[in-house]
Amino acid sequence: MRANEVPSEEITRDPAAFADRVTADGRFGRVAEPGRYRLVVSRACPWAHRTVIVRRLMGLEDAVSLAVTDPVQEVIDGDPHWVFTEATGSPGGRDPVLGVHALREAYLARDPGYTGGVSVPGLVDVTTGHLATNDYDRLSLDLAGEWGPLAREGAPDLYPEPLRDEIEAVGAEVYRDLNNGVYRAGFAPDQEHYDRAVAGVFARLDDLEARLSSRRYLVGETVTLADVRLFTTLVRFDAVYHGHFKCNIAKLTEYPALWAYARDLFQTPGFGDTTHFDHIRVHYYRVHTGINPTGIVAAGPDPAQWLAPHGRAALGGPPFGRATLPGPVPEGERVPDIAA
Amino acid sequence: MRANEVPSEEITRDPAAFADRVTADGRFGRVAEPGRYRLVVSRACPWAHRTVIVRRLMGLEDAVSLAVTDPVQEVIDGDPHWVFTEATGSPGGRDPVLGVHALREAYLARDPGYTGGVSVPGLVDVTTGHLATNDYDRLSLDLAGEWGPLAREGAPDLYPEPLRDEIEAVGAEVYRDLNNGVYRAGFAPDQEHYDRAVAGVFARLDDLEARLSSRRYLVGETVTLADVRLFTTLVRFDAVYHGHFKCNIAKLTEYPALWAYARDLFQTPGFGDTTHFDHIRVHYYRVHTGINPTGIVAAGPDPAQWLAPHGRAALGGPPFGRATLPGPVPEGERVPDIAA
Repeated sequence: MRANEVPSEEITRDPAAFADRVTADGRFGRVAEPGRYRLVVSRACPWAHRTVIVRRLMGLEDAVSLAVTDPVQEVIDGDPHWVFTEATGSPGGRDPVLGVHALREAYLARDPGYTGGVSVPGLVDVTTGHLATNDYDRLSLDLAGEWGPLAREGAPDLYPEPLRDEIEAVGAEVYRDLNNGVYRAGFAPDQEHYDRAVAGVFARLDDLEARLSSRRYLVGETVTLADVRLFTTLVRFDAVYHGHFKCNIAKLTEYPALWAYARDLFQTPGFGDTTHFDHIRVHYYRVHTGINPTGIVAAGPDPAQWLAPHGRAALGGPPFGRATLPGPVPEGERVPDIAA
Repeated sequence: MRANEVPSEEITRDPAAFADRVTADGRFGRVAEPGRYRLVVSRACPWAHRTVIVRRLMGLEDAVSLAVTDPVQEVIDGDPHWVFTEATGSPGGRDPVLGVHALREAYLARDPGYTGGVSVPGLVDVTTGHLATNDYDRLSLDLAGEWGPLAREGAPDLYPEPLRDEIEAVGAEVYRDLNNGVYRAGFAPDQEHYDRAVAGVFARLDDLEARLSSRRYLVGETVTLADVRLFTTLVRFDAVYHGHFKCNIAKLTEYPALWAYARDLFQTPGFGDTTHFDHIRVHYYRVHTGINPTGIVAAGPDPAQWLAPHGRAALGGPPFGRATLPGPVPEGERVPDIAA
C-alpha cells in the first residue's frame, strides 16, 4: 500500500503500475521458475499480507523468496518509501538478494522514467532487478492458481472453479466495506465521509457475523481466497483500525462468531504465523502523521488473545479439505511469538 | 479543565486560580445562600462532572443554578475558552443569568489583571459576576459537606468522617493513575512517557477490578465521593480515553466487575442522568487538534450499553444507606436519552 496520505476525497487505490503475470506455462511471457522472483512485502500491509499467506499455503517458499521491508517508510525525495534497514535484518540497509535500499529502485530499473507511486507487494525479477508486478490481487490469484508445478504436494485449491463467482461477490463487498472501508473511515476528509464509511464497516461486520455463525468458512467448506482477503483486515482491526482509524463502534472481539472465525484462521498455519503485530502497530501509528501527529504507538490490545480456543471445528473443515496443512515456517521468516 | 494543550512534559494541573470557600456557616467569608451562586460547567469535563453529580445527590439544584457551556471551546485572543452559545441553549450566546459569553469574563470581573488559565467548573457569585472558585476538588467536598441546611431532606453523607482517610487514600491512587493518568497517556510528549502512563492506567484498573469484585462500592457500604471521583473517568473511558487517548489495552467493558460497578452507578440517579455522551465525544475529538488534527468525532461505542442490568445489588447497598435517592432531574437540565 501507499501510506502517509490523507486524501482530500474518498480513498481510491491507484491501479497497479506494472502488472506482468507470472505463470507456470509462461503464456503471458513470464515463466514461474524457482528462484527467479522475489516477493517484496511489508508485514504491516494488508494487501501484501494476502500474497504472503497464499505463498505459505501453496508451499511456494522455496520457489519465491521473501524480502521484508522496515515497517516505517523512509522519506526519499519528499515521498515515503518502503526500504530495507539493518533493524529488520538487511545488512548495510540493502536487501541481500536485490541489492537495493528502497523498493522504488526496482520500479526505476523497470522504467527509469517512472514517477508514480510505489506500493507493496512487489514481485521483482531477480535476474534483472525489474519490478514485474505490484498488482496485489492478480498476484494473489496467480500464486494460488498459476504456479501449480512449483507448489507443494498437497497444496489446497484456494480458488475452486465452482466457487469463483461467490468468492468474487463476497470479496467485492468485503473489499468495499472492510478492506478499503477502514481506510475510508481512517482517512476521511470530513465528518460526513467518516460517518458513511464507519457505518459501512459495521454493517458489513454485522452481516458477516450472521453469515459465519453457521458456517466455518466464508465460501464453501474449506479455506479459500475469500477467507484470506477478509482475514488480513480482521487481524488488524483491534490493533489499528479500531482506534487509529476510529472504527470504534465495537472491537472484533465483541463479535462472537467473527472473532472465533478470525482466531480459527489465525491458528491455521499460514495465517497467524505470517502476522507481525509489532510491524502492524508501528507502521500505522508512526507513518500516518496526518491523523496521529505525535507518532506514539498505542500499546494494546494484547495479541495473545488470538491464541484462545476457537471452538469452530464442528462447523466445517478440515481447513483445506483433502489437501494438507503447510509445513513449518522457513528459518529466517518467523514472526515474533505472541504467547504471553 | 483546560484543554487543547499538548504539554511538553507530564500533565500537571494548574492550582486553582481562585479558591474561595462557600459554606452554610460562612466561616470563610462566603455564605451559601440559595440563588446566590451559579455553577458553570462543561458536560464534557470530568472535573466539572464531579460537582454536577454532587449537586444532584445533595439536592442542591434549587440552591445553586447550573450553566452549561458549549462542549467545544472558542478561541479568544489565541486561547480556547468555555463559552455560551445558542447551540446549547443560551439565547444570544450569553448565559441568561450571568450575561457573559465566555466564562473568563467572570475571572476578569474578579481580577481585571488575571492572565492565567480558565477552567471548569467555576462557581460564580451572581450578585457581582465574580468567580468565587475554580477549585473543583474543594468545591465538590464543600457541596457535599458544607451546604447542609440547603441540601434536600434525606441527602446522603458522601464523605463520612470515619471513612475519610480511606476515601482520600483510594482517591489519590485513582487520581494519579486514572483521573489524571488518562491525560498523561493521551498528551504524552513521547513514547516513553506514554508507555509509563498507559501501564499505570491498566495496573490501576486491574487493581480496582479485584477490589470491586467483592464489594459494591469503592469505600464503605454506600456511595461516597470515592465513587464519584472514579465514575467520571470510567464513564468517559470507552467513549474517548480508549481510542483518542490511546488507553487501548482493554475497554472498560472487558473488566466484568468494574464495568458492572460503573453501570450500577450510571443507573443510580445523579450519575447517568448527568452524563452527556455527545458533549464528551464532541469536546475531546474536536478540541484536541494536537492529537486529532482532523477533528473528526469517532462514532462509537453505543452508550445504550450503559443501561444493561448490572446485577450488583447482592454485593451491598442500598446506594445511599438510610438516605434517599435524589428526585427527578430539573426541567431544562436533562441530558439526551441514550436508550436505543
